[in-house]
Amino acid sequence: MKLYDGGKAPNPRRVRVFLAEKGISVPIEPVDLGGLKQKSPEYTAINPMQRVPALVLDDGTILTESIAICRYFEMLNPEPPLFGRGAKDTALVEMWQRRMEMNLLSLVSHVFRNSHPAMKEMEVPQVPAWAEANKPRVLEFLTFLDGELKGRKFVAGDHFTVADITGLVSVDFMKPAKMAVPDNLANVRRWYAEVSARPSAAA
Amino acid sequence: MKLYDGGKAPNPRRVRVFLAEKGISVPIEPVDLGGLKQKSPEYTAINPMQRVPALVLDDGTILTESIAICRYFEMLNPEPPLFGRGAKDTALVEMWQRRMEMNLLSLVSHVFRNSHPAMKEMEVPQVPAWAEANKPRVLEFLTFLDGELKGRKFVAGDHFTVADITGLVSVDFMKPAKMAVPDNLANVRRWYAEVSARPSAAA
Repeated sequence: MKLYDGGKAPNPRRVRVFLAEKGISVPIEPVDLGGLKQKSPEYTAINPMQRVPALVLDDGTILTESIAICRYFEMLNPEPPLFGRGAKDTALVEMWQRRMEMNLLSLVSHVFRNSHPAMKEMEVPQVPAWAEANKPRVLEFLTFLDGELKGRKFVAGDHFTVADITGLVSVDFMKPAKMAVPDNLANVRRWYAEVSARPSAAA
Repeated sequence: MKLYDGGKAPNPRRVRVFLAEKGISVPIEPVDLGGLKQKSPEYTAINPMQRVPALVLDDGTILTESIAICRYFEMLNPEPPLFGRGAKDTALVEMWQRRMEMNLLSLVSHVFRNSHPAMKEMEVPQVPAWAEANKPRVLEFLTFLDGELKGRKFVAGDHFTVADITGLVSVDFMKPAKMAVPDNLANVRRWYAEVSARPSAAA
């Protein structure tokens, strides 16, 4: 088994944080995103989508998509459960994982890719108006999340889950996207401080 | 149990097709998207994201996000498996579900929302340049998918799965987005004809 990894980028980091929470160690092969090595013929043969991460299993099967890779490890190593336990709880975790992904991570990513000078060769064409259109949507979602986090410790309930991991990498990704969590969102800030202080956040 | 549904829109349709494949019947409450009823105070209390579908369980729990709702039904009614069977297969189905969603459904949705006159009040501001930027990406992904479907019957392998459902609604959604599957993508067209001919596609 081998994990193709991409350093600071949010999606490969989701998998590393997940593995750290599970206490699983996997041999890692770094892919130099700065040098656009994810677009090399060698890596394209592994993932035609030209994105990291990718997990190569011992039988040669290649798994891509960070959440699919995390779920694979969850099924092999169910404890602690990071995708929920039982039908209702699992569905609620997936609901929150997707809310964090669609309304936060992916919007922050749109802002970053369509506004940051370093993304000029990656995002063709950059559409600055699309970056601007998404900034208020990010803040609107964080305001909603702040209300939700008033009543509970973690994004999907009383336990740390994969939805918190997506949230953590999203908020950290706001920095290169030149955005910040507003000071008045005290519940988001409390939650972020807590998840950032977990040893897994260093992964 | 009650399912808040949204007619022709692709996400609520995913859930209806999924339920039809499972042979599950759920009481349905239509939400008039044309009349923007998903933004009413009554519906916002059910789903603060103001989107359909939403599933209200008998204990009052509200589940949103089409794929989370589908997975809930999968866990209650595992046969036939539409999310895969066993760790590796389940991860591969999720990988393909996500590829279809991120590289097809969501891009077609960006094109539709940022270019269709009917979406002017829903997508504020519309960014026509973003619609244009995504059209070639949709075609690029369909071309990749065509190569993949050369060797197999369904998107994720030999069996119909939730990845095919996301694909079906995505291709149908191309019509209002004023896009079409190119004639030369024979494998995509064969696959689309097959999944469209299933009784569930009428849902």
